[in-house]
Amino acid sequence: MLDTPDLSELIEDAARRLAGRAVQTPLLSSSLLNQRVGGEVFLKAENLQHIGAFKFRGAYVALSRLSPEERSNGVVAWSSGNHAQGVAAAARLFGISATIVMPHDAPMSKRQRTEALGARVVAYDRYSENREDIAAALIGETGGAAIPPYDHIDVISGQGTVGLEISRQLETLKTSPDQIVVPCGGGGLTAGIATAIRHRHPSARIIIAEPQGFEDTCRSLTLGERQTVQDGARSMCDALQAPTPGAITFDINRQLLSGGVAVPDADVADAMRFAFEHLKLVLEPGGAIALAAILNGSISAKGMTTAVVLTGGNVDPDLFSDVLKGVV
Amino acid sequence: MLDTPDLSELIEDAARRLAGRAVQTPLLSSSLLNQRVGGEVFLKAENLQHIGAFKFRGAYVALSRLSPEERSNGVVAWSSGNHAQGVAAAARLFGISATIVMPHDAPMSKRQRTEALGARVVAYDRYSENREDIAAALIGETGGAAIPPYDHIDVISGQGTVGLEISRQLETLKTSPDQIVVPCGGGGLTAGIATAIRHRHPSARIIIAEPQGFEDTCRSLTLGERQTVQDGARSMCDALQAPTPGAITFDINRQLLSGGVAVPDADVADAMRFAFEHLKLVLEPGGAIALAAILNGSISAKGMTTAVVLTGGNVDPDLFSDVLKGVV
Repeated sequence: MLDTPDLSELIEDAARRLAGRAVQTPLLSSSLLNQRVGGEVFLKAENLQHIGAFKFRGAYVALSRLSPEERSNGVVAWSSGNHAQGVAAAARLFGISATIVMPHDAPMSKRQRTEALGARVVAYDRYSENREDIAAALIGETGGAAIPPYDHIDVISGQGTVGLEISRQLETLKTSPDQIVVPCGGGGLTAGIATAIRHRHPSARIIIAEPQGFEDTCRSLTLGERQTVQDGARSMCDALQAPTPGAITFDINRQLLSGGVAVPDADVADAMRFAFEHLKLVLEPGGAIALAAILNGSISAKGMTTAVVLTGGNVDPDLFSDVLKGVV
Repeated sequence: MLDTPDLSELIEDAARRLAGRAVQTPLLSSSLLNQRVGGEVFLKAENLQHIGAFKFRGAYVALSRLSPEERSNGVVAWSSGNHAQGVAAAARLFGISATIVMPHDAPMSKRQRTEALGARVVAYDRYSENREDIAAALIGETGGAAIPPYDHIDVISGQGTVGLEISRQLETLKTSPDQIVVPCGGGGLTAGIATAIRHRHPSARIIIAEPQGFEDTCRSLTLGERQTVQDGARSMCDALQAPTPGAITFDINRQLLSGGVAVPDADVADAMRFAFEHLKLVLEPGGAIALAAILNGSISAKGMTTAVVLTGGNVDPDLFSDVLKGVV
């Protein structure tokens, strides 16, 4: 693995590549939220990023670091939806083709938007087929370059710019983070943010939030080696269902994380309603899970300065309506 | 009336009073929106303001300009909901009481949030009673100071800071507005923004969007004097149902506005869905109407730099669900 100082430099480089390309998303706050948790909470609104999620960052950076020759046959990616859109949007900017392997039960809006961005979508059954195998076949067929969703240093460094921005934005507010709460799937965003934040704030705690049933990174941290999600696990957080932590991401995360919590879907739905009612933001389930961990008290924010990453807002209207009605 | 140079100075003063108090809301953009309209559109997201709407600005500035003696008996306001919350939030910051006259059919969430901010709410029937009369009686009873929703120079100057911020934010992006589209009810936000923008961008066009049936300011501009909404008009834009333009606001607006459009509810609902799907923002109907006027083509943005004000996001979950489902 790259050691973390090198990755910090790659994140700085990624930030330069993204300048004027990615949205510098706002760092929001809510006096009601601060009152409720008894601390200062800052919300990094990556749902306002291009394609409605942070994934544009890593995808764009990964594509930008390919040589023109490597890019010439297009790219192949596998994703539950947000990385798919990120790769599709970045490929369009570079004028190359993108083929994306997506689960057949991915939110319809994510698939439609990926196709609207000009990508070819290949569907698979996430419970019976292996997406990496399908992607490998497509790479053989097209000669395209693989852009993995998280276990890739260029992708990680792109996502890490979220942490760099949080740090710089807090600096302009004349404060610094005591802790950062990050939604965790395969661990790419977490590894990037953890590296950027630890580099600039050595004593800050990095804590992950995972869906209950998909707390493979939490269990892996406890046991010291990569664990796998148990068969039959289900969660509404479609963006956070990677079956196991990435090899590269876990190598970074086990060194830098302070811990993590598993959040039940019901609390995720509460956080989505809180964001609707009090923040006026549309969050998808996975995008609300770090906020949920603060709101349900499983991570205390009392007396501290906490940054919370709101990772995305790509949610189907039917599910969002059900959440608003309290059906979910 | 104050002439516009004096009001420009009051707006600059208001911005200093609001510094560190109001949210400097982000100016967002969407490549999809730009593609669709063939121009550069910047969205001022005042739904991310305290209390979920720009109204905090004018209320806070108006209270801040009262003397401690004037403030000592509290304040009285009348409002369909957002000014109510703005006054309640500002009164709480100044540690004084607030009594708010609200229509009985105001969105439940607006009433509940006003009460949650510590204000006393007095309900009335907007189709049979006059809210100014009820407020006058409450002022006599409590000795409180009146904080009108729009027809007051301190309120107008507070709302005008939205225009000042847009201008400054566009400046950092190295551009300037060709036109600004503003939702218009009683005309306070419009008058404030028009003053601030015309002062800094003399050739920029200021255009209002009003709900169909409530286009009293549009008709007043055409006829040169204040017109009244026709009996029986109905719109889902609860925030934009002032029966007639304000005297002070119209005096300013007839000098500075380039025109306006009336927008049907169906197009407002389309804009709310667009904001949900592509911007990840929760907008209330009145908060989406300027975006609706750009999306439905009644205001062309082609080849121009257009600023659009998204005024608020205080919408009941049931209505929002109906909009998402296409029932509205």
